[in-house]
Amino acid sequence: MKPPFKIALAGLGTVGAGTLNLLQRNADVIAARAGRPLVVTAVSARDKGKERGCTLTSPRWVDDPLQLPGLGDVDVVVELIGGADGVAQQLCEATLGQGKPVVTANKALLAKHGVALARLAETHHVPLMFEAAVAGGVPVIKTLREAFAGNRIQAIQGILNGTCNYILTRMGVAGLTFADALQEAQAQGFAEANPSMDVDGHDTAHKLAILAALAFGFKPKVATITLEGIRRVSPLDLTFASELGYRIKLLGAARLTQQGLEQWVGPCLVPLASPLAHINEALNAVRLKGDAVGTVALSGPGAGADPTASAVVGDLIDIARGTTTLPFTIPAAALTEAVVTPMDQRVTSWYMRLQVKDQPGVVADVASLLRDEVISIESLLQHGRSATDSVPVVITTHAIHEAAMRRAMGRIAALKSVQEEPCLLRIEDEQA
Amino acid sequence: MKPPFKIALAGLGTVGAGTLNLLQRNADVIAARAGRPLVVTAVSARDKGKERGCTLTSPRWVDDPLQLPGLGDVDVVVELIGGADGVAQQLCEATLGQGKPVVTANKALLAKHGVALARLAETHHVPLMFEAAVAGGVPVIKTLREAFAGNRIQAIQGILNGTCNYILTRMGVAGLTFADALQEAQAQGFAEANPSMDVDGHDTAHKLAILAALAFGFKPKVATITLEGIRRVSPLDLTFASELGYRIKLLGAARLTQQGLEQWVGPCLVPLASPLAHINEALNAVRLKGDAVGTVALSGPGAGADPTASAVVGDLIDIARGTTTLPFTIPAAALTEAVVTPMDQRVTSWYMRLQVKDQPGVVADVASLLRDEVISIESLLQHGRSATDSVPVVITTHAIHEAAMRRAMGRIAALKSVQEEPCLLRIEDEQA
Repeated sequence: MKPPFKIALAGLGTVGAGTLNLLQRNADVIAARAGRPLVVTAVSARDKGKERGCTLTSPRWVDDPLQLPGLGDVDVVVELIGGADGVAQQLCEATLGQGKPVVTANKALLAKHGVALARLAETHHVPLMFEAAVAGGVPVIKTLREAFAGNRIQAIQGILNGTCNYILTRMGVAGLTFADALQEAQAQGFAEANPSMDVDGHDTAHKLAILAALAFGFKPKVATITLEGIRRVSPLDLTFASELGYRIKLLGAARLTQQGLEQWVGPCLVPLASPLAHINEALNAVRLKGDAVGTVALSGPGAGADPTASAVVGDLIDIARGTTTLPFTIPAAALTEAVVTPMDQRVTSWYMRLQVKDQPGVVADVASLLRDEVISIESLLQHGRSATDSVPVVITTHAIHEAAMRRAMGRIAALKSVQEEPCLLRIEDEQA
Repeated sequence: MKPPFKIALAGLGTVGAGTLNLLQRNADVIAARAGRPLVVTAVSARDKGKERGCTLTSPRWVDDPLQLPGLGDVDVVVELIGGADGVAQQLCEATLGQGKPVVTANKALLAKHGVALARLAETHHVPLMFEAAVAGGVPVIKTLREAFAGNRIQAIQGILNGTCNYILTRMGVAGLTFADALQEAQAQGFAEANPSMDVDGHDTAHKLAILAALAFGFKPKVATITLEGIRRVSPLDLTFASELGYRIKLLGAARLTQQGLEQWVGPCLVPLASPLAHINEALNAVRLKGDAVGTVALSGPGAGADPTASAVVGDLIDIARGTTTLPFTIPAAALTEAVVTPMDQRVTSWYMRLQVKDQPGVVADVASLLRDEVISIESLLQHGRSATDSVPVVITTHAIHEAAMRRAMGRIAALKSVQEEPCLLRIEDEQA
């Protein structure tokens, strides 16, 4: 057996402690499979005294994480500090710059500085690995980078944020409002105290940018992703969607079209016939469509100490075995700027919920504004009458250009009988 | 860019022609990702004149496949001839023996000779790759061998045979008999003229043996897998199952228990709440449970020219990159003989369909025989009355030892009022 592979862990939060525990607990099978023992020799975190549920006797404590790559008994640094810049970025740069490999779970860092870090890794001929950055323990990055390397990838569609999926599941099952479901998710440990990264879709966009880079060879660029979060979704929408044969999910989607790369993050209606409709609670799922392989779906725990540690340790074993590839599959210098398709070119069906005055003629007004944009109505639902004189009306349309739908929406929202900002959601009928 | 990686293809059936086509069609992206061009330099098949829908101008035709490994312009041999022994085995042995890598899609060969071939590959320090042998384009082997290498794998559960899944889906959707659904599958090209390998479960057992070796470190041994095919399933069973909230699927399952390895292939009832219930037509799906990652599901096209070619080309790219691991993850010499749990120790719920005389007292007789074995009835269904005086009765039970259930079944089958061999199926309520 080869000499031990020596690991430094920077950051001992949920994932860091989970990784340390997993490396210790499964040391025997890991050594057998890697052909050498994997040993944590040094750790660094902010607070040495904190209780973490992991044993810190054998690895050495280092106060300054930036000292880790310089240590003689460190072969690889695992960056689990987090944040798109700052210490996390400095640590990755310092490690790669000293010709040592990096494993990170940091999607924000990769979405922002991934190309620069990949170039640095390639210059120094060392691996930069990040399976844990997308979908936790679900091996979507390895699948794109290696298993599907013979394919032209055509589309990616995924439920990539467990917090949003938990919130939407609970709103649907228990009829909770967004605010109540968020509070429950926070109490369960599924949501951060500041939930914006999750519920406003930024986290999903980071992950989508990384997947699109691997799949299509484009530089990750979050700024070109059309982005919408789930705050606008009401329990009413989940009820109506269910009645129409759909679930509401926050999807990230990227697709190559004749015009270029179409990529967006947003809540949308997914038909019950789609496997994505059945991914509940904090699970993640990704559908990948390749020209040869067809559509393949991967799903499982997208977050949490153990599943994320599984991905980190998988990367460490790949490095210990010497079986890694380039960070983005092709050289970072060969990644191109994507030509991004404007979303208003996109043709899709729509779900629109209006809160209208309960009086004759309202539906006729709405229908005529839709007709003016040549939008056909697929179905119209209105339930009961309201004591407050205001009732929800739900309309679904046949497929139409997004631009036309947005114009119609603007005019509908301006009607005097429409009493709240309408809720407009895409219907994703296509299978990946 | 490195020099071209030179490939010999042996066998030009569906998968061979698909592999040749894919390597030609996607040559540009494949070269970019592998860091070198992948070129087919030689091919061999039985009939040179046959129309295959692929261009044979550039690779050289070689009549005897066993000459391929000896050619100077061949770096790797892809074995797509098939069969557990014979030319396929000789070709793999000859290639590995000459220190050249092998890629194969041959599950029967691997299930029977996998350990010997792996030893030979290890002796000569060359890769033996077989992603295409299980679940076509779905990367289950790479996931077990690499992504989940940090886990103790606890269980595998899969729909691994597209032919059986197609037949069961059509029987359920269109009410076809097994014979008619099989004929339809044959007409559609989903089933061989001799369907026994598929419908009697052998193909699933071969794949399960390979997965169990990768997951648990046991030598593949098909003979220790409890095996049952789908011929006994009638459209009546699919109707009753549906009414009870289940689908019927041919599963292959392996699980580590306190007693050892439990592994079986058989038709069983899967609850609609399980994602496996929604895998239809010729799709495959696998659920893997690891101690860290939890349960991860992979699904997609399990057969066909393009999806299988995707897996073969993925393996070829891994070899061209030099990023392969040992065939069974750990050295073949370290694979152990599994202690196999006798299936009669297994506790599960059951579905039993009886064809009984439509007369008073029959259900009482059956119920008392179940009571004698302390088996509780969960539900009992009987529909209508029959002109022929014979009606189906379906009973589902609470969980009970298989041995007790089989004893009760024997006595029930012997009742004079029971007119056909009863149909007994496992209910798989556990989530992988």
